[in-house]
Amino acid sequence: MSKSSVIEAPRTAAQAVGCCPPLSGAVLEVSQAVTAAAMFKALGDPVRLRIFSMIASSPGGELCVCDVLDVGVSQPTVSHHLKKLREAGLLTSRKEGTWVHYAVSPGVLGALASLLQLPA
Amino acid sequence: MSKSSVIEAPRTAAQAVGCCPPLSGAVLEVSQAVTAAAMFKALGDPVRLRIFSMIASSPGGELCVCDVLDVGVSQPTVSHHLKKLREAGLLTSRKEGTWVHYAVSPGVLGALASLLQLPA
Repeated sequence: MSKSSVIEAPRTAAQAVGCCPPLSGAVLEVSQAVTAAAMFKALGDPVRLRIFSMIASSPGGELCVCDVLDVGVSQPTVSHHLKKLREAGLLTSRKEGTWVHYAVSPGVLGALASLLQLPA
Repeated sequence: MSKSSVIEAPRTAAQAVGCCPPLSGAVLEVSQAVTAAAMFKALGDPVRLRIFSMIASSPGGELCVCDVLDVGVSQPTVSHHLKKLREAGLLTSRKEGTWVHYAVSPGVLGALASLLQLPA
């Protein structure tokens, strides 16, 4: 068995939001609002947001859970936050040996940014 | 006394976030994360997000609370959601006669979008 294996496929949340008009362009449909709100909710905790920014800004775009340090919470709490971010479709994960590595889901930052874009 | 009066000054949350590097550029400082997370949290409810998009997309950029209709919740719940959005610095409000009118805080959409921007 390979040492490195993908343990979770990227969710389609980013694409679902990417499809949507910007907030300032039209009233969001209920289904669009449900998807986008889940992502905003996951980013709505300061520690979780810092962990997300840590992964988003890491060289190579991927970070081992073992390198999520100095965020002021215990390792189990870090894992809980990472799970919430993954469940919202914001992160993908990959197991390599003992450790899980996290990356920002493809397209998710762009999708959220376009949701928030101002009218041209 | 004037019929129209400003009942709340715009908060500086947008500027506070606007100052910050994009998530993908550097790890957020704790104070930046606290401000931004409060805004994301306020957007992290589907009904609240739809109400916000209703205001953001309204012609003229302002909406009377009396025109926030068909969102599937009672008027008191609408008022509760609007209060949360205002407290997070996402909306400003203005009283005109009997009704309160809401608008997206200046700069807030751009600030959140730049927080989520991808590296150049």
